Amino acid sequence: MKELKKAASKIRALEVQGATNIALFAVNQMVQFAQRNAHLSKPDLWNYLVKAEEIFAKSRSTEPAMRNGLMYILGKLRHDYEQGIDYDMAKMVEIYGSEYEKILKVAKRRIAKYGARLIPDNLDEPYVVQTHCHSSIVEAILIEAHRQGKNFKVISTETRPFYQGRITSKKLSNAGIEVIQVVDSAMRWAANNMGTDLMIIGADAVTSEGTVLNKIGSRLLALVAKEEHIPFYIATPLLKYNPDTAFGNYEKIEMRDTVEIWKDWEQKPENIHILNPAFETVNRLYISGVISEAGIFPSGQVHNNFQLVYPFLHEAYHLVEHQDECDDF
Amino acid sequence: MKELKKAASKIRALEVQGATNIALFAVNQMVQFAQRNAHLSKPDLWNYLVKAEEIFAKSRSTEPAMRNGLMYILGKLRHDYEQGIDYDMAKMVEIYGSEYEKILKVAKRRIAKYGARLIPDNLDEPYVVQTHCHSSIVEAILIEAHRQGKNFKVISTETRPFYQGRITSKKLSNAGIEVIQVVDSAMRWAANNMGTDLMIIGADAVTSEGTVLNKIGSRLLALVAKEEHIPFYIATPLLKYNPDTAFGNYEKIEMRDTVEIWKDWEQKPENIHILNPAFETVNRLYISGVISEAGIFPSGQVHNNFQLVYPFLHEAYHLVEHQDECDDF
Amino acid sequence: MKELKKAASKIRALEVQGATNIALFAVNQMVQFAQRNAHLSKPDLWNYLVKAEEIFAKSRSTEPAMRNGLMYILGKLRHDYEQGIDYDMAKMVEIYGSEYEKILKVAKRRIAKYGARLIPDNLDEPYVVQTHCHSSIVEAILIEAHRQGKNFKVISTETRPFYQGRITSKKLSNAGIEVIQVVDSAMRWAANNMGTDLMIIGADAVTSEGTVLNKIGSRLLALVAKEEHIPFYIATPLLKYNPDTAFGNYEKIEMRDTVEIWKDWEQKPENIHILNPAFETVNRLYISGVISEAGIFPSGQVHNNFQLVYPFLHEAYHLVEHQDECDDF
Amino acid sequence: MKELKKAASKIRALEVQGATNIALFAVNQMVQFAQRNAHLSKPDLWNYLVKAEEIFAKSRSTEPAMRNGLMYILGKLRHDYEQGIDYDMAKMVEIYGSEYEKILKVAKRRIAKYGARLIPDNLDEPYVVQTHCHSSIVEAILIEAHRQGKNFKVISTETRPFYQGRITSKKLSNAGIEVIQVVDSAMRWAANNMGTDLMIIGADAVTSEGTVLNKIGSRLLALVAKEEHIPFYIATPLLKYNPDTAFGNYEKIEMRDTVEIWKDWEQKPENIHILNPAFETVNRLYISGVISEAGIFPSGQVHNNFQLVYPFLHEAYHLVEHQDECDDF
Amino acid sequence: MKELKKAASKIRALEVQGATNIALFAVNQMVQFAQRNAHLSKPDLWNYLVKAEEIFAKSRSTEPAMRNGLMYILGKLRHDYEQGIDYDMAKMVEIYGSEYEKILKVAKRRIAKYGARLIPDNLDEPYVVQTHCHSSIVEAILIEAHRQGKNFKVISTETRPFYQGRITSKKLSNAGIEVIQVVDSAMRWAANNMGTDLMIIGADAVTSEGTVLNKIGSRLLALVAKEEHIPFYIATPLLKYNPDTAFGNYEKIEMRDTVEIWKDWEQKPENIHILNPAFETVNRLYISGVISEAGIFPSGQVHNNFQLVYPFLHEAYHLVEHQDECDDF
Amino acid sequence: MKELKKAASKIRALEVQGATNIALFAVNQMVQFAQRNAHLSKPDLWNYLVKAEEIFAKSRSTEPAMRNGLMYILGKLRHDYEQGIDYDMAKMVEIYGSEYEKILKVAKRRIAKYGARLIPDNLDEPYVVQTHCHSSIVEAILIEAHRQGKNFKVISTETRPFYQGRITSKKLSNAGIEVIQVVDSAMRWAANNMGTDLMIIGADAVTSEGTVLNKIGSRLLALVAKEEHIPFYIATPLLKYNPDTAFGNYEKIEMRDTVEIWKDWEQKPENIHILNPAFETVNRLYISGVISEAGIFPSGQVHNNFQLVYPFLHEAYHLVEHQDECDDF
Repeated sequence: MKELKKAASKIRALEVQGATNIALFAVNQMVQFAQRNAHLSKPDLWNYLVKAEEIFAKSRSTEPAMRNGLMYILGKLRHDYEQGIDYDMAKMVEIYGSEYEKILKVAKRRIAKYGARLIPDNLDEPYVVQTHCHSSIVEAILIEAHRQGKNFKVISTETRPFYQGRITSKKLSNAGIEVIQVVDSAMRWAANNMGTDLMIIGADAVTSEGTVLNKIGSRLLALVAKEEHIPFYIATPLLKYNPDTAFGNYEKIEMRDTVEIWKDWEQKPENIHILNPAFETVNRLYISGVISEAGIFPSGQVHNNFQLVYPFLHEAYHLVEHQDECDDF
Repeated sequence: MKELKKAASKIRALEVQGATNIALFAVNQMVQFAQRNAHLSKPDLWNYLVKAEEIFAKSRSTEPAMRNGLMYILGKLRHDYEQGIDYDMAKMVEIYGSEYEKILKVAKRRIAKYGARLIPDNLDEPYVVQTHCHSSIVEAILIEAHRQGKNFKVISTETRPFYQGRITSKKLSNAGIEVIQVVDSAMRWAANNMGTDLMIIGADAVTSEGTVLNKIGSRLLALVAKEEHIPFYIATPLLKYNPDTAFGNYEKIEMRDTVEIWKDWEQKPENIHILNPAFETVNRLYISGVISEAGIFPSGQVHNNFQLVYPFLHEAYHLVEHQDECDDF
Repeated sequence: MKELKKAASKIRALEVQGATNIALFAVNQMVQFAQRNAHLSKPDLWNYLVKAEEIFAKSRSTEPAMRNGLMYILGKLRHDYEQGIDYDMAKMVEIYGSEYEKILKVAKRRIAKYGARLIPDNLDEPYVVQTHCHSSIVEAILIEAHRQGKNFKVISTETRPFYQGRITSKKLSNAGIEVIQVVDSAMRWAANNMGTDLMIIGADAVTSEGTVLNKIGSRLLALVAKEEHIPFYIATPLLKYNPDTAFGNYEKIEMRDTVEIWKDWEQKPENIHILNPAFETVNRLYISGVISEAGIFPSGQVHNNFQLVYPFLHEAYHLVEHQDECDDF
Repeated sequence: MKELKKAASKIRALEVQGATNIALFAVNQMVQFAQRNAHLSKPDLWNYLVKAEEIFAKSRSTEPAMRNGLMYILGKLRHDYEQGIDYDMAKMVEIYGSEYEKILKVAKRRIAKYGARLIPDNLDEPYVVQTHCHSSIVEAILIEAHRQGKNFKVISTETRPFYQGRITSKKLSNAGIEVIQVVDSAMRWAANNMGTDLMIIGADAVTSEGTVLNKIGSRLLALVAKEEHIPFYIATPLLKYNPDTAFGNYEKIEMRDTVEIWKDWEQKPENIHILNPAFETVNRLYISGVISEAGIFPSGQVHNNFQLVYPFLHEAYHLVEHQDECDDF
Repeated sequence: MKELKKAASKIRALEVQGATNIALFAVNQMVQFAQRNAHLSKPDLWNYLVKAEEIFAKSRSTEPAMRNGLMYILGKLRHDYEQGIDYDMAKMVEIYGSEYEKILKVAKRRIAKYGARLIPDNLDEPYVVQTHCHSSIVEAILIEAHRQGKNFKVISTETRPFYQGRITSKKLSNAGIEVIQVVDSAMRWAANNMGTDLMIIGADAVTSEGTVLNKIGSRLLALVAKEEHIPFYIATPLLKYNPDTAFGNYEKIEMRDTVEIWKDWEQKPENIHILNPAFETVNRLYISGVISEAGIFPSGQVHNNFQLVYPFLHEAYHLVEHQDECDDF
Repeated sequence: MKELKKAASKIRALEVQGATNIALFAVNQMVQFAQRNAHLSKPDLWNYLVKAEEIFAKSRSTEPAMRNGLMYILGKLRHDYEQGIDYDMAKMVEIYGSEYEKILKVAKRRIAKYGARLIPDNLDEPYVVQTHCHSSIVEAILIEAHRQGKNFKVISTETRPFYQGRITSKKLSNAGIEVIQVVDSAMRWAANNMGTDLMIIGADAVTSEGTVLNKIGSRLLALVAKEEHIPFYIATPLLKYNPDTAFGNYEKIEMRDTVEIWKDWEQKPENIHILNPAFETVNRLYISGVISEAGIFPSGQVHNNFQLVYPFLHEAYHLVEHQDECDDF
């Protein structure tokens, strides 16, 4: 259990980064943990695994892909149990862990394929795609579109305070894609003056209302899209859906260290307070569609699609939420 | 004439900064120029002054307060001439120059007084005022409000790439006002989460349609104000109205050096282009009111109010625009 | 059958009130009716039960929870029959009746739990929740939130002509919650001046388009929410979904007696007509989410969620609507 | 001076009611006061009159028509003085007082004439006009339209807590006009279901931004008008323009006694607070036009039109606001 | 295979017209093709059928009802195969072909029934329904409503360049329905001046985002509906849903021959270019609901409803899209 | 007087066309009429002229430029009279008539000059300007811009039923400007797909609220402009302002002959009614600015600008409207 806590603290300390990496890391830890405790009785191992899930779940407030991975394993195990199937639990943890890993990989590949199709073929003038911050999924879409020979350029906002927009700019530029970089506050100017045709950003989490949580500035960009009637897409695996939001459990917006903002500034004067929110939310009415492994659809559909595509997971969260309901009556 | 060109090039090179400073500097140069040429005949001096105005007008595309100052002197001189008043022209240039200086001072004082009244007295909880970039007029309003003991705090966005928002933060902080500083892309988050009650920004120029030209990011903030129904004010002397816009002559948006954006970045990759627009425009439908020396009114009224308050100036621009009309018929 | 008609007329005459009470009352009547006729043959009893359902359905135009209860019993019976299960029909009516009762209870409990989570924990200043009219579900949410020690106050509009808003005010006040009462036409003023953070109202019915039918004034409040971008929630069991709306069968808005409005007024003058609509509709684009026993989701999802959560019921309505389709071909 | 204070306190205590009545009463008091002090020297009488104006101005925060009347007299006197005209000051107060009275009468007559024209002639089906609260100006328009034989009916909202909407209903009904009365919260329902063609309400004051201050519920009605694209007019003399708002001096919204709301209710529970705002504001973007004695125009034009139609008054307010400006420099 | 290509080219050349007719024609061709090749082995026949589907799919870019018909047959065959059911494949093609035909017929009948219910019974004044272009589904709804004795009239826009609006006008007029015909650019004027209560148009295709593709002018009408808050419905079988749009495969807007626009005009001048787009898209936020064989629901639900109502078809498209996915890993 | 009536009937019968032509024709008739009656006494001639104005005013409901011309002559004459200037009235009619003619010419020239400036210089890609119907003023702007070598193309909608858009297309094409012609219902598609940068249309009349009356379809185009945030300008002389609208006197929308719409159609069926409105109105909130001889400004300013630029005319209308006011008191 100690090693699990160490692993969880690595996630908390941002030593592991990127939603998919964190998910794979946690799933892998769970698998190793099961193997180390393979000698236990099934009920005991089960209880251990449930506790392990809780430890990881608490490590980071906004990591639905990680929590979905752990719930996937637990959900599958419970199902086997209920079906009365006899099996080696530690082994099954490993199998379900690799299943989840494969699901994530397929998801990314499909999203890149579907998303790239949003840029038309055979254009005389380059299509203008605008993004904000850095999302490996958006990057994958654009690189796939470039690989197919599509004609487009990308507007990238620098994304203060950490300048992740520069990562996007460099990765795309290295892949041979033309990029226009502007300061964050020029996002509307650029959309209007460059004639943005399409906006795509990533997501840190999606709620049951179809609200998307993403890097600070995302809601601002969504406002610009709405004002100019520019199609605005979220590229994200369905596995970033947080089913707990259906029960009213929302993440708090993380407030990061002020040093990220005033480090290179002279000594901060007394009456100045700095606020450094990491994320903001985008309401479903601003979102044209979610590009997911299950296809492109309105973000308000995410709850139903998750339920149809990953019924095990849907079920697993309901079981946890309502486990003490029987006693109530 | 050479000295005038030198002076104009100082303005062009940003050696003189701030709309009011530039206006005063140019008016002062005109006065000295008249004194140096006091020995000339009236028609000759007049022609010299007209040329001088043209030299300054070309030095900077977005300096209506400066051009209004020069047109004020010329307009007054013409009026004297048409009235058949006999006078010492060089002397009158000096007199009209100081008149304009006084008008600008009174304007600033009045705007500070009127604007401060927008923050209510005797509040239990601090009023939240949000601004963007640095405007000495907005600064004057807030310091006046603080002097009167009003209870408020200010949200200030850092304003990449030059961080003029930090100037605002420091000036207000030094005056004892509480300031909250956020990155530019958090402007909407801050408005919503801090509960912004009032937004005030400055202006670089105002057009006959009531459109305001101001620092990049201003239109974005206006969008936020509209979305959240937050009163959105422009604090500016009427003298930043550019009467030439009534004839369809709009300023181009200045594109500044890319080095302002990527200086501290590693060698810029090949496919990345940087765009660095200095300003953007805010349409009158986003503006609650303009706080001017002639009072607070809708920005769409600026053309009529300018005409009623400064009839000389209104006339002077019409004469220039339509000078060759007679020949046309 | 006579007793059923008496019971239905009690519902019609508002002797039984509140959507849940009416549903439980009607289900209970159906159970007793089945027991009284337990001696009949199955086909005869079935026909009796179908007729009973029709009698109740006609008693009130806007009681989907009641009709869903009766359809639940009939749907389950039909399913048993189709499965060829042999059983005591009257007994099964009783069993399915209690099932439905339990479903309603669980629904309310879950909604209270989910809804309470919309108010954040550990706030320094009280959250401001605004409601309109009286809904026992909204009341349950707020009392649950108070029980958990959350810091909030409630704005309650008086809800002319029957002042049900005062019932809300008193019930919450008795539970120890701070309430601010205003006249109906001050609903926007209050939202803006008190800084409403969240609006929650109940529902009388929900349609397949995600439109909500609720007390007159609800649409007005929704407009205010939209203008000020205040999250606007509907708290209602999924069982208030009326599946017949999917077939285009909408309820008429009930016009109530004019005496409710002019009773305490001097003799109504001749040219004055009084209109007293009981309800109005709120379109899905104004609704942030529905808080239901199946979780929180966009109101446009209600049709699909009902189908996924209560497949029996979904099926039962389709069978009734399309029963003569076979003959058509 | 004592009698003036008595008169002012009558206004404060609402013993005199209606904007025009209050204006006429105060002007009349000023005239009598001048006559009582006719024996004084001109400078002394002038000082007395200035003080008298201040006493009345403080009696009520939202009475621009009254203050405009007093400023009209003072402005005219000052003008005479500056022109070096020799005259009997007390006599002139009387003359200017009657001038103002006549101006108000003409204003009302013209507004009735212009406003009535907004209802087309010779309609087959009645035009539907919706109003809120009671305004004698709106009443005059509608009675004039009825006198001309126009075919229309009126929707009147009851206007809790004082039911002034019933006054409107009765006055119109007595004049032979068909009226439909609904509760306040049905204002949108009525607009949509009766097919409202036109909305007209009165005004308590107008600001330099073109914002209208009127009975609580007015902003709500304006929202409905905007949503349904129904023309929304304000019927008010230009003399309800408050020129001090151009200097940032806004009235506070009066909070009236809670007894107006809960009088007929059983003993108010402990945790319930009642708020009873008298007015709310309507922004110019919601207003199709102002129907004034100077014609129908956008409410944002009120500042310029006031200046063009009543230059004396415009000047008078500026003199008061800027009287100590000279000393500042 | 040659005959198939001939049939496909008939579709391409518009010799067969109307979405349903085209669907039935293609399905029928497929049935005949299977019968002609009934002697082949199952694997061979299967391959032939797959190729046949491809030939038809390429014949027209916007014919989802046709492609759904062919996929229905293939999906059913595959299912039989996977279940290990032994059967006569050519015979089954015929059976599944008639199944699809019946499904389309039932769909139309149900849509007419559901849609007609949107017009209320027993109205004193005629309801005003506005449509654009000609849709046989909308025609069926209106004729059904007329058959039921409902009181309504229809606004029909002429629909340049082919005047299909006149077809609508004549068909309805022949059925005894009152029609008002206006030019296309009067669509807003008519909505406002006739008091349109309801708008219904057809659809050529629906996407996974709930976007509807329909005749040029449809988006314009949707704008009018949104501005005036008029309920705006799409009448279409679910079978016009194109499941490939979920994978990002959108149809191109067909550009038709310019001769349709300038034929009756004198010789077209040199600098004039004519553009003649056949369709445009309507976003889901403009659509009140889709009237389909599965009921009335938000157009954003079409993906989920299609999946729930036609699981075979949903599955069939996924199999095609992801057939080479296995090889990827 | 008979000849005047003949002339007026020519205007009524559309023998004279185009707002400027009609104005010049009527003014010319008035001049000739004065010359024919030069022998009369001044009071008699004055009365004749007043009657003449009435005859023309009634000839056409929507011809403000004509009525302004006649009022200009009468206003000038009255002013001379009031100033006690002795003069030859018939001669003065001629002089004022030519003055007005010159004013109209200058107006058109200035508008062409100001409007052309809205298209930027030195563009790499052609600017896209969209218009509707045919306006000689818009034509003049575009030809002036082309003469200056600006790079742009024009989208022209055909404007059923009279296809005046084709006139625009041909005139511009003949002048060497590239034109794209689409059907009316493709106006939004074209704006979006061609990337319209600017919209300019003409005006038949402007009201005191800043509402513009123009060809049917103009309001629809304004909606498109608003949706896509495309600058939307009205090119019109201030002299198309109708000052009577300030008194509530609005023109009726002319309903033209149905034969314009169905002429080339087979015999119109019995139940089909055709409506053929000539104009529709555009509200000021949809209009970026009015391009007039007095400059470019918000359309809501038209009343004030008319008053400042043509004070004689403003006065003249007030005198007519209020002539019997004195007797009222």
